[in-house]
Amino acid sequence: MANIAGIDVGNTGAIAILDKKGNIVECVFMPVISYQKQGKKKKTEYDEPAIKNFLLKHKVKHCGIEKAQTMPGQGISSMGNYMMGYGILRGICTGIGVPYTLIHPKTWKKKLMMDMGQAKGESIVRVKQLYPDYNLPLKKDHGKADSILIAKYLLTYVL
Amino acid sequence: MANIAGIDVGNTGAIAILDKKGNIVECVFMPVISYQKQGKKKKTEYDEPAIKNFLLKHKVKHCGIEKAQTMPGQGISSMGNYMMGYGILRGICTGIGVPYTLIHPKTWKKKLMMDMGQAKGESIVRVKQLYPDYNLPLKKDHGKADSILIAKYLLTYVL
Repeated sequence: MANIAGIDVGNTGAIAILDKKGNIVECVFMPVISYQKQGKKKKTEYDEPAIKNFLLKHKVKHCGIEKAQTMPGQGISSMGNYMMGYGILRGICTGIGVPYTLIHPKTWKKKLMMDMGQAKGESIVRVKQLYPDYNLPLKKDHGKADSILIAKYLLTYVL
Repeated sequence: MANIAGIDVGNTGAIAILDKKGNIVECVFMPVISYQKQGKKKKTEYDEPAIKNFLLKHKVKHCGIEKAQTMPGQGISSMGNYMMGYGILRGICTGIGVPYTLIHPKTWKKKLMMDMGQAKGESIVRVKQLYPDYNLPLKKDHGKADSILIAKYLLTYVL
């Protein structure tokens, strides 16, 4: 069995596992830990060991990680957290010895979204076309949908 | 033998290995790969497998990583790279199962720099006081000096 993973980076991102035929094995929101100091903004961090164990559990052979890039005009603090998370995912793959491929959002969208738009909800529509039996009922499921399409891209066009 | 590591984050950072008595076993600049596309700025990325293998080679039992924080006014692109590298180091530790502790620069400097200033070169002066036989001849060795002091702090005040 050779499973692969697609990862949508971010605190509201997700990790999808596909088997080598492209079937969805499991898809979860990014494992995170949230905490709040009195009078301060809530902070959210990746649950690093949970991410590691999820990839190990599914015997992942290759990870597709959505390529993160800084863009002028972003808030410095949220962007810093985003880039840190991106690094954590890459580092975990390196640490557990799983090869990874960075996939730019434009790259997978061009191949998989056909002539659809690129609004957040549209990846959910596309996943429902490709996997009519797979349930993505929530508005926030766009992270899961993205991760499934990233994995699908990896399997179809890279591996 | 229980070695520990101190890590000064960044492309010009460093990794120091101390044994349990506090002796310097080895200290290297951050393993990186640089490349340049024609007409573009040089890019530098961490050599992730080299970092992993360095920690494994020395059978590191605990890593002290200098705590990185975003600060308003930083350049968005260099700051993003810095935070990504910080994440990579954390992720590698998680991936190889090495516990880590994030140490704020103020924290180790307060304990180890005594009443000295905090200019970049001063950590070199301090390391030469603590390890008179250890050679740090270059101006850019401040990254190595920092990593040695972070490891020293970890060993003395955390473990």
